[in-house]
Amino acid sequence: MKIIVQKYGGTSVGTTERIKAVAQRIKGYIDNGYSVVVIVSAMGKSTDELVRLAGEITAQPSKREMDMLLSTGEQISIALLAMALHEAGLTAVSYTGSQIRMVTDGNFTNAKIHSISSEKIHDALRSNNVVIVAGFQGVDRDDNITTLGRGGSDTSAVAIAAALGVRDCEIYTDVDGVYTADPRIVARTRKLREISYEEMLELARLGAGVLHSRSVEFAKKYDVRLHVRSSFSSEEGTIVTSREEMMEKFVISGVTAKSDEAKVTIRDIVDRPGVASKLFGCLGENKIYVNMIVQSTGHDGKASISFTVKKDDLARAKELCGGLKGDLGGTSVESKEDIAIVSAVGVGMLSSYGVAGRMFEVLSRENVNIEMISTSEIGISCVIDSKYAELAVKIIHKAFLEENQ
Amino acid sequence: MKIIVQKYGGTSVGTTERIKAVAQRIKGYIDNGYSVVVIVSAMGKSTDELVRLAGEITAQPSKREMDMLLSTGEQISIALLAMALHEAGLTAVSYTGSQIRMVTDGNFTNAKIHSISSEKIHDALRSNNVVIVAGFQGVDRDDNITTLGRGGSDTSAVAIAAALGVRDCEIYTDVDGVYTADPRIVARTRKLREISYEEMLELARLGAGVLHSRSVEFAKKYDVRLHVRSSFSSEEGTIVTSREEMMEKFVISGVTAKSDEAKVTIRDIVDRPGVASKLFGCLGENKIYVNMIVQSTGHDGKASISFTVKKDDLARAKELCGGLKGDLGGTSVESKEDIAIVSAVGVGMLSSYGVAGRMFEVLSRENVNIEMISTSEIGISCVIDSKYAELAVKIIHKAFLEENQ
Repeated sequence: MKIIVQKYGGTSVGTTERIKAVAQRIKGYIDNGYSVVVIVSAMGKSTDELVRLAGEITAQPSKREMDMLLSTGEQISIALLAMALHEAGLTAVSYTGSQIRMVTDGNFTNAKIHSISSEKIHDALRSNNVVIVAGFQGVDRDDNITTLGRGGSDTSAVAIAAALGVRDCEIYTDVDGVYTADPRIVARTRKLREISYEEMLELARLGAGVLHSRSVEFAKKYDVRLHVRSSFSSEEGTIVTSREEMMEKFVISGVTAKSDEAKVTIRDIVDRPGVASKLFGCLGENKIYVNMIVQSTGHDGKASISFTVKKDDLARAKELCGGLKGDLGGTSVESKEDIAIVSAVGVGMLSSYGVAGRMFEVLSRENVNIEMISTSEIGISCVIDSKYAELAVKIIHKAFLEENQ
Repeated sequence: MKIIVQKYGGTSVGTTERIKAVAQRIKGYIDNGYSVVVIVSAMGKSTDELVRLAGEITAQPSKREMDMLLSTGEQISIALLAMALHEAGLTAVSYTGSQIRMVTDGNFTNAKIHSISSEKIHDALRSNNVVIVAGFQGVDRDDNITTLGRGGSDTSAVAIAAALGVRDCEIYTDVDGVYTADPRIVARTRKLREISYEEMLELARLGAGVLHSRSVEFAKKYDVRLHVRSSFSSEEGTIVTSREEMMEKFVISGVTAKSDEAKVTIRDIVDRPGVASKLFGCLGENKIYVNMIVQSTGHDGKASISFTVKKDDLARAKELCGGLKGDLGGTSVESKEDIAIVSAVGVGMLSSYGVAGRMFEVLSRENVNIEMISTSEIGISCVIDSKYAELAVKIIHKAFLEENQ
């Protein structure tokens, strides 16, 4: 049995017309001898509508009841898709997360998958059914309905592919693949034929990913090859796979910019062990996510630490730093909101020298000042003034992705 | 623990404002020391909206998938009501039919309840929760979601009361009780303080019931006392209970008229055993529900049979009768659509002579011709020309319910 797992996002099943189109696409696979397992999201904006209803009742809805409420969205989609497949002449059966025993922890609204029982899916496939599973939802060990949080349906799809031992999982979304840069910024952007899990994770972290990092981590862990593509066309999208499997490795496969973070700097901190851990330990305990961290080389036993946090967390982060300042021996806490983080991501960096240097050169040629630099195995990020964000993406893209390829 | 079971219909939870009002009503019971188990329907017209979506996809939706689809309506209501109860300062937890193991047969869209596990409800009550259960839905033995058909949420409520061994079940609806006649027809109609299960069943059969017959049968079987009342007022409604428990028994407690049936007459059938069983056996096999049946006394070994069927089934019924006519020896199949069935219902008839005669006299006084008569233990029904339906209800109500009481 040649099984393929497909996931259709909210836009792909946004109307009954779209659901019928999805049924036709699935029929194409069945006609070609595939057995198909489909994971679907809630229809278009239906989740927003449910959130609105809850908001009319309370400002602080119980998370358990939110999951009870929101999980209905996917249940509606699976039933309608089953009907559309029947109408297309196929046999099909739909299952909720509970029915296939998608067992999660009890962390409502952001649950983690523990296990999936693949038996029911296998049985239904053997009876020639298209198997439709509600994405985004599961049940905890006490049979309470849970949801998986952002990108949850992608994670459901990957987890089901892994549980079935299926290598290929198609992720249908409203874009037709992963691009080297945002097409709204860069005219000569290209769709990538392939990208590695690591690059995809880096892009997700940088806010430019089509997929949520959790689903990519899952795919990497269980070696599930993702095919990110559009349900509005038959064109090939982008394959997300292991580095080893990639046909060609570009030095840089994507350039991104994000503007949702702010920079905090504490000056003249005493330069001794334990200071950084005290600071970031405190921020972590207060659930403030810190992205980039740079510590300047000290002089006179003093150093400065700069880091970036979500703009939403800035006020709280400054408050906490203010409280710690005395302990740390810092003289002042400064912040800057109009920054952008411009990044270049690519597995090819690993085997290519001088990428960072070339990137800095490209920026300096246009007089873009770099305020912070951070590098990872497969990425380089620079904090710059937010007004240069688009320019920076354009010139880095041009230098690495347009001229030499 | 003083437990009360309450069921709120679609109008009672039609908007988030209404849901908040229901939460306040429940709070009143909690403040008075009750433990409350609440069964809710889908919000207002939300089921219609789901049916519309299915209709956009297929004219013949799979019943299993219809149940998957429609059961989301109640799931939305229970989550929102739980949130509203939390907002009102109460602890509350919601459960789907699946979660309380409301196990039914596998007859999708019209399933019958086999068993309920009361353990989860008892546990939650012991932890001081208001327990909210999705009405209308269950699961079959293979964990497929089922729905209970028309009046399903009332049946859920009664079944849960029975499973918990609770005597009292309040049914909140958009009318404030059971009336002696339709107030749109009869000006001097009265709300009944009490009515027996049998009368309520007869009214349901005659299409005038506030409750579906299945829930009343359940209530009768398990001796659950129903209180039919409005969620829009604090007034007492109507208690549905056993005849033995009723304080006073009226000769007639209700007068109804229905116009959704048509009459079929087969003339000159051979008058011998087996003829009626052949005819009605055939109609039954074809799932045509026959309400009234009258066979005229034969002469010359011939008889006529008249019966009523739903107007929707008339064409098919005539076709079947036409096919059987030769076998039965009938000469012609006639039908009449513009009829009404006017009925008087009351347990008091059992101990009161001459009710039928008085009813016929009342009708004849106004020159209303009676085309068929059928009597049951607690009801008399007459088929008359549909144009006299309202008049008939008025004069029978006047004779039995206004003049002598």
